[in-house]
Amino acid sequence: MKKPCRVVVYGAGGYGGVGLVEILRVHPGVELVALVSREGAGEPYSKLYPHLRGLVDMEVVHAEEFDPNGIGDLVFFSTPDGVGQKLAKTYLDAGYRVIDFSGDFRFQDSETFKAYSAWQQGESDHVSPELLSESVYGCPEFNREALSKARLVGNPGCMAMSCLLALMPAVKMGAVEMDRIVLDVKTGISGAGKKPKPLFHYPSADGNSYAYKVGCHQHLFEIERHLSMWSGREAVVNFTPHVIPTTRGILSTCVLPIRKDVALEDVVKSYEIEYDSEGFVQVERGGRQELSHVKGTNLCRLGLHPVERSHTLVVTSAIDNLQKGQSGNAIQVMNLMLDLEESLGLSQVANYP
Amino acid sequence: MKKPCRVVVYGAGGYGGVGLVEILRVHPGVELVALVSREGAGEPYSKLYPHLRGLVDMEVVHAEEFDPNGIGDLVFFSTPDGVGQKLAKTYLDAGYRVIDFSGDFRFQDSETFKAYSAWQQGESDHVSPELLSESVYGCPEFNREALSKARLVGNPGCMAMSCLLALMPAVKMGAVEMDRIVLDVKTGISGAGKKPKPLFHYPSADGNSYAYKVGCHQHLFEIERHLSMWSGREAVVNFTPHVIPTTRGILSTCVLPIRKDVALEDVVKSYEIEYDSEGFVQVERGGRQELSHVKGTNLCRLGLHPVERSHTLVVTSAIDNLQKGQSGNAIQVMNLMLDLEESLGLSQVANYP
Amino acid sequence: MKKPCRVVVYGAGGYGGVGLVEILRVHPGVELVALVSREGAGEPYSKLYPHLRGLVDMEVVHAEEFDPNGIGDLVFFSTPDGVGQKLAKTYLDAGYRVIDFSGDFRFQDSETFKAYSAWQQGESDHVSPELLSESVYGCPEFNREALSKARLVGNPGCMAMSCLLALMPAVKMGAVEMDRIVLDVKTGISGAGKKPKPLFHYPSADGNSYAYKVGCHQHLFEIERHLSMWSGREAVVNFTPHVIPTTRGILSTCVLPIRKDVALEDVVKSYEIEYDSEGFVQVERGGRQELSHVKGTNLCRLGLHPVERSHTLVVTSAIDNLQKGQSGNAIQVMNLMLDLEESLGLSQVANYP
Amino acid sequence: MKKPCRVVVYGAGGYGGVGLVEILRVHPGVELVALVSREGAGEPYSKLYPHLRGLVDMEVVHAEEFDPNGIGDLVFFSTPDGVGQKLAKTYLDAGYRVIDFSGDFRFQDSETFKAYSAWQQGESDHVSPELLSESVYGCPEFNREALSKARLVGNPGCMAMSCLLALMPAVKMGAVEMDRIVLDVKTGISGAGKKPKPLFHYPSADGNSYAYKVGCHQHLFEIERHLSMWSGREAVVNFTPHVIPTTRGILSTCVLPIRKDVALEDVVKSYEIEYDSEGFVQVERGGRQELSHVKGTNLCRLGLHPVERSHTLVVTSAIDNLQKGQSGNAIQVMNLMLDLEESLGLSQVANYP
Repeated sequence: MKKPCRVVVYGAGGYGGVGLVEILRVHPGVELVALVSREGAGEPYSKLYPHLRGLVDMEVVHAEEFDPNGIGDLVFFSTPDGVGQKLAKTYLDAGYRVIDFSGDFRFQDSETFKAYSAWQQGESDHVSPELLSESVYGCPEFNREALSKARLVGNPGCMAMSCLLALMPAVKMGAVEMDRIVLDVKTGISGAGKKPKPLFHYPSADGNSYAYKVGCHQHLFEIERHLSMWSGREAVVNFTPHVIPTTRGILSTCVLPIRKDVALEDVVKSYEIEYDSEGFVQVERGGRQELSHVKGTNLCRLGLHPVERSHTLVVTSAIDNLQKGQSGNAIQVMNLMLDLEESLGLSQVANYP
Repeated sequence: MKKPCRVVVYGAGGYGGVGLVEILRVHPGVELVALVSREGAGEPYSKLYPHLRGLVDMEVVHAEEFDPNGIGDLVFFSTPDGVGQKLAKTYLDAGYRVIDFSGDFRFQDSETFKAYSAWQQGESDHVSPELLSESVYGCPEFNREALSKARLVGNPGCMAMSCLLALMPAVKMGAVEMDRIVLDVKTGISGAGKKPKPLFHYPSADGNSYAYKVGCHQHLFEIERHLSMWSGREAVVNFTPHVIPTTRGILSTCVLPIRKDVALEDVVKSYEIEYDSEGFVQVERGGRQELSHVKGTNLCRLGLHPVERSHTLVVTSAIDNLQKGQSGNAIQVMNLMLDLEESLGLSQVANYP
Repeated sequence: MKKPCRVVVYGAGGYGGVGLVEILRVHPGVELVALVSREGAGEPYSKLYPHLRGLVDMEVVHAEEFDPNGIGDLVFFSTPDGVGQKLAKTYLDAGYRVIDFSGDFRFQDSETFKAYSAWQQGESDHVSPELLSESVYGCPEFNREALSKARLVGNPGCMAMSCLLALMPAVKMGAVEMDRIVLDVKTGISGAGKKPKPLFHYPSADGNSYAYKVGCHQHLFEIERHLSMWSGREAVVNFTPHVIPTTRGILSTCVLPIRKDVALEDVVKSYEIEYDSEGFVQVERGGRQELSHVKGTNLCRLGLHPVERSHTLVVTSAIDNLQKGQSGNAIQVMNLMLDLEESLGLSQVANYP
Repeated sequence: MKKPCRVVVYGAGGYGGVGLVEILRVHPGVELVALVSREGAGEPYSKLYPHLRGLVDMEVVHAEEFDPNGIGDLVFFSTPDGVGQKLAKTYLDAGYRVIDFSGDFRFQDSETFKAYSAWQQGESDHVSPELLSESVYGCPEFNREALSKARLVGNPGCMAMSCLLALMPAVKMGAVEMDRIVLDVKTGISGAGKKPKPLFHYPSADGNSYAYKVGCHQHLFEIERHLSMWSGREAVVNFTPHVIPTTRGILSTCVLPIRKDVALEDVVKSYEIEYDSEGFVQVERGGRQELSHVKGTNLCRLGLHPVERSHTLVVTSAIDNLQKGQSGNAIQVMNLMLDLEESLGLSQVANYP
């Protein structure tokens, strides 16, 4: 029997971290060896997350006191932009494989990263540009081969994941008018992270909804970049993110104008074929793709809605932003990297209702 | 002093009805003379709506027992498609002016109505086609003149209202590529009415969201029709409605591809000019248009978000679906018809939070 | 015609402040002359509360720069414990009448205040003990006479108000076993104020509920004290506050063990008599007292549920914590103080749904 | 290796049924052999519950067409009062063991059942009174021995389970004044079942809360009966159930007046001792017992809050009404009956947030 992979969760205090811990604590292929965080350091992890009392009581190690050498084989950086690029080299040198949750390793060259950073926290150079060329974008459905051998992975942004799965089959077959794609994304509030802010104070957020960062969200860059890379054609996307009053879930409505010489039915079929053997992507003609059906799971549900009168394909995509949009997908990537069954630890279904 | 207009609310049992009653009970220009409904007939209205106990205790009259002759001067039909077209003639003959909440009088000829009905309950002929030519579409912002003299008004659909206000200035100036408009609409659950259904059972609806009737919602027809009528150019719209987990509100995100020869700034300005003197439309460059800011009010808040890279204007539009999207707008129309101040009875603000 | 009273809202930035402003802006008996706050100082009030754009755009004055002399006639301190006791004297000397929202003026002697403070932020002496004896507890239903002449009023705590209205008639008639009262209070999250905190972060609060400060909440002291004062008998109350996942509203379930020699029916009748002429207290035998029916209003709805088998009266009490529990009640008090009609400015009903 | 027990779920269409199916589909000790329901009959189960697509696609059998003979070894009746008492004998005769979710087998003699029925649907005689004496009340924590040998089990009511776990240690030690217990229960809306009703229509239920069936809920009878049976002393309980706006969870606040001659600390200790070895009951001194921490799990979290000034112990109890309050507990009971590890299939934790 294979020795279990020793896993470190760096940034265990946030929602991404606890999403990993909830899965890893019973994952048969790994051993959870360290939970690293500023928040909650020196105390049992279950103090920070009381629903894990009796289940994950190991002490949280302070980020500044953690020496990774000899401790683990794989690390998740569940941290914001800027952290992974500083730490990755140390961990790689210590023999770790690395899965990063931020934008730090989602692009394979320093120019692209620089352009990305301008959309995000302000233009800046990558701290470890030499690592970028070996980094792999963590989308199992379109990068399976590369991920299975990767040392360093950039886990996709939650909205990017939701949209790319909805776009790729049509884009890959060259059916889409690439400068007219319109993406309308609705995200639950946990996507904004664990830190309290006025907009996410319950009385402000209850029953409320609005668009934000119209035309300038950093995931727009990420989507265009990977669409272009994978299809070889330049994409110009109109992307509007919205907050809706729910804790979990991303619902994306993707309007794909189809080239006049391509039949909508052929595009619809390309999705059915592309995802036929994918364990975590479910394709449906018509129907309703509800957030409730994917919450708590690693599933992406795609609805294919051809509209003849405008010759467009509307694809609706429902995921759990903290699972297929973050931790669940990262575990799927880890399974690939460790040559384990891809769905290991990811069999949970939604509790309904 | 003018004698107050005697008002009948037909269909007082539903959300549209109660929305009217909440306003009319203290409206200084009218007298509420009859509440007509099947539900709650023979009992005080406040039994149906306990929040009005002590305020609106008049007895509800059963729809089949109500004889309108000599009772009132104006009637609201807060009823679904098919009711108003049967009853309007009787009321008009009895000297009433009529405001109908359904699709029955939103179109001015029988061919258009027939085409509309095919999108809705199934193609059918209008029961009173001779009335259609005098019916007026109840959008005060673009039909003020006609409404002030109207005998018969079709109150707009809630989603149509939300989108038309967001589209008209740009469309009127000829700035929009009319075959590529994309409308993404998020509606609160009260839009589905008062009747309990499995999808709107709290455990199903709580935190849930999904698209429905993709590309085939009846309000799509209404929007295209009025855009075309008012602009003289054929519109082909891509329209996707969604349910979001809130009780009140419609948030529409309208992506308007602007003709290459028109500057975005000029389009933005056209909104500021068009709505400068409108009491119920507030225009903002950028910013966040939140449902919380319009709930309980007759306001429409429009956000103008020009996106140079795709040469589009994204207009976000927030209304209360039961106010500017229904009862509030109908009162505004009534005020126009009665030559009263347009905002009379509509001064309520949102309670925050 | 009487000159309108010039009103200052001190602490206009919080929920209590905006609740006042929403009402005062159209209150026919007053003129809003200054909005004082640290938050939002130097900017239009509507920047802080965008739903008031175009309606309340006056500039917010910084608390430390505001000189009250000659500006106003009445001030609301919508501030936490400790502020009003420092400022009241200055305002009283400048000719203001004062309504304070904190615990600072809810007790009429320094010993009681000291005992109260021990339940709250830690035992401390009152800064202006000489003012306590003239302060009046702002419960119109039981202090109307005194309030009409008061210069200085302590507006009740929201939970205290909810419970005292539910308890007083039975307690006043001497029907209750005073050492066995059990109060179970459920409050919406706006009761915790506007400042974001981890527990009230939307993802934490969504669908969540729990008890807190079991047996040691400061409103317990306030309730016992006023019960004892008004009834002349010592009360020992078991009081458990809970958070429930809604923005507005307090639902209190009050279990009153009735003395064996008193018939439940007589106790029930005492409520009907006591509140017969009260405009803001509605009494019902049985029935459901729903938060939805009082939200946005100054109403208290009481349900009387006699339980013979345990010879108890269960009284359920529903209020809007920010209205009858705070700002609405304060306006009612102000109307009394200014000899205006008690309900002036308080006619809003709940929007339903 | 033991042959897996063949399990039939009768009433698979409701929330209780799907809660069982979600667990049983991956439970290593059983084989799911039939899903019986009127709703959804003749179609794949996943049509009724789309979140189980690809996981539970077996066809639903119509209740009237299902012949149990030779099919299974154990049946769950996830049905309302009145169904189990009619069917149980047939299944027992066919060799099944039976777990019933209704009140039909919660009492061990026909007189008690008759008294119970008067609280519920109206007084009626039990259809199979001869079975009552062998039926066992399905509370593992206090009936483990009997359950391990039981053929016929009445699964407790959700509110009864929540309260009995909170009450029993103190009651068993004789510390409680049995005629003065006050129970205040808040339940999520899924407790009312899957059938849409006006009160549970999203716009009605959103943000709303109220008490119902004050002093006359059928679970009150169930609680008193089992308290009395297990303690040998008559209990008179004051019990008020409330609806709160959340989908899942029951939060009970139990006020236990403690006999003057018993120290509160001793009572607190009795809980720690009683539940020390229980896998699904977690005891805490003070702290917050949040619904969020138990949702989706079979846990009961108890908080012990001694209040010296009234010499009471307040016990707060948080469970998931559909898990420890229904299906999860039923699986725990089944494990006991089948001599499997008690926690088998019940290891899921809450997803947080």
